[in-house]
Amino acid sequence: MNAPQDASPLNGAESLVTTLAASGVELCFANPGTSEMHFVAALDRIPGVRCVLGLFEGVVTGAADGYWRMAGKPAATLLHLGPGLGNGLANLHNAGKARSGIVNVVGDHALDHARHESPLKSDAAAIAGSVSAWVRSSRSAAEVGLDAAAAVQATRDGAVGRIATLILPADTAWGAGGRAAVAAPAAAASFDAAAVPATARWLTQLGPRALLLLGAGGSASERAQHLAAAIAAKTGCRLMAEFYNARMPGGRGRPRIERLPYVVDAAVAKLAGTELLVLAGAVEPIGFFAYPGKPSQLEPAGAALLTLAAPHHDVGAALQALADELGVSGEVTLPAQPRPLEPSGALNPESIAAAVAATLPEQAVVIDEGVTTGRSLAGAMGAAAPHDWLAVMGGAIGWGLPGAVGAALGAPGRPVLALEGDGSAMYTLQALWTMAREQLPVVVLVFANRAYRILQGELQGVGATISGDKARDMLSLERPALDWVALARGHGVPGVRVESAEALVAALRDGFASRAPAVVEVVL
Amino acid sequence: MNAPQDASPLNGAESLVTTLAASGVELCFANPGTSEMHFVAALDRIPGVRCVLGLFEGVVTGAADGYWRMAGKPAATLLHLGPGLGNGLANLHNAGKARSGIVNVVGDHALDHARHESPLKSDAAAIAGSVSAWVRSSRSAAEVGLDAAAAVQATRDGAVGRIATLILPADTAWGAGGRAAVAAPAAAASFDAAAVPATARWLTQLGPRALLLLGAGGSASERAQHLAAAIAAKTGCRLMAEFYNARMPGGRGRPRIERLPYVVDAAVAKLAGTELLVLAGAVEPIGFFAYPGKPSQLEPAGAALLTLAAPHHDVGAALQALADELGVSGEVTLPAQPRPLEPSGALNPESIAAAVAATLPEQAVVIDEGVTTGRSLAGAMGAAAPHDWLAVMGGAIGWGLPGAVGAALGAPGRPVLALEGDGSAMYTLQALWTMAREQLPVVVLVFANRAYRILQGELQGVGATISGDKARDMLSLERPALDWVALARGHGVPGVRVESAEALVAALRDGFASRAPAVVEVVL
Repeated sequence: MNAPQDASPLNGAESLVTTLAASGVELCFANPGTSEMHFVAALDRIPGVRCVLGLFEGVVTGAADGYWRMAGKPAATLLHLGPGLGNGLANLHNAGKARSGIVNVVGDHALDHARHESPLKSDAAAIAGSVSAWVRSSRSAAEVGLDAAAAVQATRDGAVGRIATLILPADTAWGAGGRAAVAAPAAAASFDAAAVPATARWLTQLGPRALLLLGAGGSASERAQHLAAAIAAKTGCRLMAEFYNARMPGGRGRPRIERLPYVVDAAVAKLAGTELLVLAGAVEPIGFFAYPGKPSQLEPAGAALLTLAAPHHDVGAALQALADELGVSGEVTLPAQPRPLEPSGALNPESIAAAVAATLPEQAVVIDEGVTTGRSLAGAMGAAAPHDWLAVMGGAIGWGLPGAVGAALGAPGRPVLALEGDGSAMYTLQALWTMAREQLPVVVLVFANRAYRILQGELQGVGATISGDKARDMLSLERPALDWVALARGHGVPGVRVESAEALVAALRDGFASRAPAVVEVVL
Repeated sequence: MNAPQDASPLNGAESLVTTLAASGVELCFANPGTSEMHFVAALDRIPGVRCVLGLFEGVVTGAADGYWRMAGKPAATLLHLGPGLGNGLANLHNAGKARSGIVNVVGDHALDHARHESPLKSDAAAIAGSVSAWVRSSRSAAEVGLDAAAAVQATRDGAVGRIATLILPADTAWGAGGRAAVAAPAAAASFDAAAVPATARWLTQLGPRALLLLGAGGSASERAQHLAAAIAAKTGCRLMAEFYNARMPGGRGRPRIERLPYVVDAAVAKLAGTELLVLAGAVEPIGFFAYPGKPSQLEPAGAALLTLAAPHHDVGAALQALADELGVSGEVTLPAQPRPLEPSGALNPESIAAAVAATLPEQAVVIDEGVTTGRSLAGAMGAAAPHDWLAVMGGAIGWGLPGAVGAALGAPGRPVLALEGDGSAMYTLQALWTMAREQLPVVVLVFANRAYRILQGELQGVGATISGDKARDMLSLERPALDWVALARGHGVPGVRVESAEALVAALRDGFASRAPAVVEVVL
């Protein structure tokens, strides 16, 4: 007797891995537990999906964000029930704000087991809902393949990505009758051509009273930046980028595009006199936080907003159409930018910026979670070698080191520089171990100001005053001082402490030359 | 002109701190951000609430759990918006399963700012809902005091605690018109006396076919354990405790109460022949995970369940009533338990257990997140000095080191021993820094098996087989090996690596004698 026609040799987990591989998902960042063991076994047997282990779920989800930004395709995660998802939630929040695509796989209890009160019973769907554009819980092994294909499709929203969470009850993973599926190819990103002629007229008419604001999506391309600079040169409009950008090309041979300031007063001053904001992949500029008596919306009251291209649109194509409408070529003449000189002497924001700009290798990927210290680098980076600049997007610190892991894996062969505050690096320092394990070419600069320095500023920003030691103590990391050389070594990464600009330059050169992970503690 | 009668000199944050202090909340574990700066400033100005800083939110929430278990009163947390709450979610999950009371304070954007799409905009209420028994978002500065008092009240549920999440939009913190309030005193925990006579009859009639199962709440008291042992001696019933217990007294001079096994087959075998389970603060025993072909409910089919006392009841009083009904005194004669000898030779589960039992100081608090290695200690601990044993309750690893911080602060003067797997310790290793900062008397044993050893067992348990290196690699932490001595030093804690039983004994003695934090890496 023959087996029934629909008999499948796959269990649910195997259908999931087969589907992911067939749908272009090549990498899985994983922190598995018991309920995911069949997924682990399936990854073992079925080729096509590489596994990278993180020792904490925030490493897993932050890495998936960094990977998407460089590879332009989603990685899968593998998380363990509601608590594992919770541990990864902050970096899923960041990834959502970065518009990164992630197939977020969360193992859960078997459906019958979930009827009972067990220690790990949790509501993964509720937790996932707060950060996911798409959530589905598989109901049977036979549905897992189709669910996984739908998840991969749900990670794509035109030019940008989204988070799709697939919850996988253990019995749907171990159950028989799995059927592999394939995600439909991504649709091409579009834009609304009807907005182009009006935009051209407005920019030409208003000149410097109009601001072309670049944001996510296709604006990350070097070509889009050249087009935007040419449009600004032609029309006389101002050109800026959002303060935080998921990926922004920079360095020599590229137009210097100023970013909106982080500090509300500075941003308001920068936007003063603007009558029209033309949004090219950007959204209305909103302050990071609210402060008593300061606005949330940063543009002047009465300023008009015109969307040339939404973030999910093909921003590059929209800018090309606008350039065509205006009759500009998209080529701007850039001033000669000499290579920066190596600094010497004391470490300060200027010498640190000069050291980074002087040593950065060609086509490096810079991860910016330097918080207070990192901000001062922006000015110097125009003279650095061409690079991509990736900022933490959702404001939840602890993205940088995981993001560097993902960026290194998403852009094989390209060196990565991670700029980290000591406070922010501590959130997900376990990422150092994954760097060591995978021997990723990541140089980590930890700016050891031994304080939540940004909060010392924010305290003033919100108008709160402190007089006593208790509050001062809560913003200080001095007691005891973290030893980043020891922390690095503990994770299997070589570390060095630098206290002069010369030493920083040498450490950066050595780190990049090693093509392996290295931590540099920059004592401030 | 006089100020209006209802004018208050307090802002919302000050009314919150005043209310917490007046309501018996003495400690705040904090990882603040911008939206909590007024709370920080208020803590600075208003006496009564001590602040302890964690460098990661999972440290904050796990410490609040450990604190409740030893102090029996809630601590406050201070977390930063939805992502900060997410980082603390796994240990809130654990705290919920432990029935620990926590006033979980989450700062959020100002109400008007939350109308706009800013990087840190998040749905804190949705995230909090999955782990909280009570969630409220303050709507104005004037309501914060009453909301905080209601939150403190909501942390109490008879003999056990609950998680109350108070979301504090920044403008309700900085706004004027705050009014302090005071939480109502906790109501006494009760029990249902009507269940006592029937329980006495059933236990007497069934003898060894009945099992008295101890669980949370008042069963944690030494007196309750003596009563339960006397009841078992009188009626001939069996006596066990749940596998995981929020706090369980143990050691010399206390009845040895066997715990239900973790492994499903062993638990089912242990419960075979049981016709009646009498639940004294316990709940129906459910397997930790589901496995193909194995039951979720561990008692035999057809076994009856009788609730003498629910977890929120006064389990000790219920046991006292049962003892009175049976005419037993509550004193059992315990066999003489000589002090254990110090082991020598190789490190193995037996010598490790002997070393811990031999060196444990009187009235130590033991934190058990040793996972596979930790399980083997149970047998030896009966001969150790009297102690309290605290287990991770929700199954989300990463509770142990934070829990040790909280336990040390909740039981000042008592030494703490944290048993940690290397995999589990990595989740929240930042807790080491708080131990150093507060100079807490915590000795941490890290069992460095360099693997997710439990998963190697679970893989077999679920019937998954692996053949290739990919899965093996995902369960191994060997490449590279973590250096716990360096990781400890990086956080400001002295560390030592031991490779023999003699060295372990010496390290334990030195660690306890220092009355300060110490890490011992136990190489397996």
